[in-house]
Amino acid sequence: MRKTVILITGNAGFIGSNLSRFFLKEKKKILGIDNLKLGKLKNIKDLIRNKNYFFKRLNITNFNKLDFFIKKFLKSYKIKTIWHLAANSDIKDGSEFPDNDYNNTFLTTYNLIKIAKKYKIEEFVFSSSSAVYGDLNNIKLKESSGPLLPISNYGAMKLASEGIISSAKESFLKKIFIFRFPNVVGSPSTHGIIHDLLLKLRKKSNILKVLGNGKQKKIYMHIDDLIESMVFIYKNSKEDVSLFNIGPKDSGVTVNFISKEIVRSFKKNKKIIFEKKSKGWTGDVAKFRYSTDKLKKLGLDVKISSKQSIIKAIKDLVKM
Amino acid sequence: MRKTVILITGNAGFIGSNLSRFFLKEKKKILGIDNLKLGKLKNIKDLIRNKNYFFKRLNITNFNKLDFFIKKFLKSYKIKTIWHLAANSDIKDGSEFPDNDYNNTFLTTYNLIKIAKKYKIEEFVFSSSSAVYGDLNNIKLKESSGPLLPISNYGAMKLASEGIISSAKESFLKKIFIFRFPNVVGSPSTHGIIHDLLLKLRKKSNILKVLGNGKQKKIYMHIDDLIESMVFIYKNSKEDVSLFNIGPKDSGVTVNFISKEIVRSFKKNKKIIFEKKSKGWTGDVAKFRYSTDKLKKLGLDVKISSKQSIIKAIKDLVKM
Repeated sequence: MRKTVILITGNAGFIGSNLSRFFLKEKKKILGIDNLKLGKLKNIKDLIRNKNYFFKRLNITNFNKLDFFIKKFLKSYKIKTIWHLAANSDIKDGSEFPDNDYNNTFLTTYNLIKIAKKYKIEEFVFSSSSAVYGDLNNIKLKESSGPLLPISNYGAMKLASEGIISSAKESFLKKIFIFRFPNVVGSPSTHGIIHDLLLKLRKKSNILKVLGNGKQKKIYMHIDDLIESMVFIYKNSKEDVSLFNIGPKDSGVTVNFISKEIVRSFKKNKKIIFEKKSKGWTGDVAKFRYSTDKLKKLGLDVKISSKQSIIKAIKDLVKM
Repeated sequence: MRKTVILITGNAGFIGSNLSRFFLKEKKKILGIDNLKLGKLKNIKDLIRNKNYFFKRLNITNFNKLDFFIKKFLKSYKIKTIWHLAANSDIKDGSEFPDNDYNNTFLTTYNLIKIAKKYKIEEFVFSSSSAVYGDLNNIKLKESSGPLLPISNYGAMKLASEGIISSAKESFLKKIFIFRFPNVVGSPSTHGIIHDLLLKLRKKSNILKVLGNGKQKKIYMHIDDLIESMVFIYKNSKEDVSLFNIGPKDSGVTVNFISKEIVRSFKKNKKIIFEKKSKGWTGDVAKFRYSTDKLKKLGLDVKISSKQSIIKAIKDLVKM
């Protein structure tokens, strides 16, 4: 009998590599796919020797190549669930180059959905984002909040992906999970505020230039807690369509706080300079917070705060 | 000075041809583009002789061809507004062949948005659909209702298009209009219940087989009223992002009513047979109705009901 393997895309990325590590500890078998564009081999080098781990470098925007590979793979193994984490995670970049979001965020979803249909894969888990909500004036975002008018191509292509997955559920998938992430911090992050600030911190200049006026206030979650939350929902939700905001209960921390904390932690003597504009970049949602009532009702009361997550993530980095 | 022309895609289709006729009466200049896949030349044959009307057969899923044409056209004319009506309007077909929705509904939007960016076109008007809401259990759908979990690829690709237009507004468009249509009836319709039933009515059989159990209850609007509503919003809304449900105030009419009305109007002696299932097809939202408060607040109180719209549309056909 063919053994069941979990397919995880974006496997060498920040979330994919950590999720694989988690599942391997649970003795699950993983097929990791990554085009190694944003993902890096060093993120999975500790996994490669695990006999339950298969890795394939593949560009899933090319349907025929994906199909060819999956067809062969399924002669020996069975896939019941796809965890689709591959995406262009650089939101800033997407406003300049929309094709990056189109190809790497949307087309990857579209192709995987066609694969799921063709090979009767039953479950589809998707890493969506708070960016699908656009800028709803800092209301507490519920899963049912609307209208969904994203202000970045990143958010638009995450929303497009949600739509095509939802439609596939009506037609052939058995269960879908759509997780709307907050900002996720921790290692080995490939993008985001801590990553950006750290790169700037390493420069010789004694000035640390921060994007936006520093008053942007968003919610953050540490990767460990994010994975725990995703797996909790996956294991406990009985709904066919499980749409969940994942994040802390607080109303976030400011960019000002994060900048000061990172300078302090790395013991750098730098002057922090902010811009005048309220947004960090085109498509930035400067303030957002989640209602996590749905998650709590399912039985998961997230205890860690945005502030704790940020401090934990910076500590991880200081140790490295 | 270059004269301003309105670009209308899906121009030889049901709504595009009627909208062009409307604008031409207002002495506007129109550039109509259509691939003539679902649209038909006979729908615009009365427009061709109008000196304010330009028609170009073009497949806008091919960005390079579209770009080549628009670049040449803009040497002589100016485009301020795109009315993007091109889409795969066959919802049923989309669950079987998702590529039709992907190419004709989403990729057309994506390419036009790139054109708008490249040539600094300021306004984008989009024909969206109630299908973006998915099946929200027959609540009165407001523009802010959510979650948006479409159950057809048609709805998913309309939602994807909304997202990319919304994101483009943040980055370069000046004004966007997203109109969520109800079912639209009238001539020369290329799809929909009246169209389907009429085709069946012409068959020799003395039985009229109807999809679903006949209890599906949806709202309908006659094309004349739809165009009046769209133009009203376009002229009166001061918002940069104008998202509006367009439809009647009632809770709809049943498929049973429409079937009987069409048999009666065409004086055919046919026995109407329903199926057992509550939905007409995979992806069908069997019941839906709109809150039209936003439209009313803007100053448009839609008087015509779904029933009147259906009767008017059938009368149009009987006369033909």
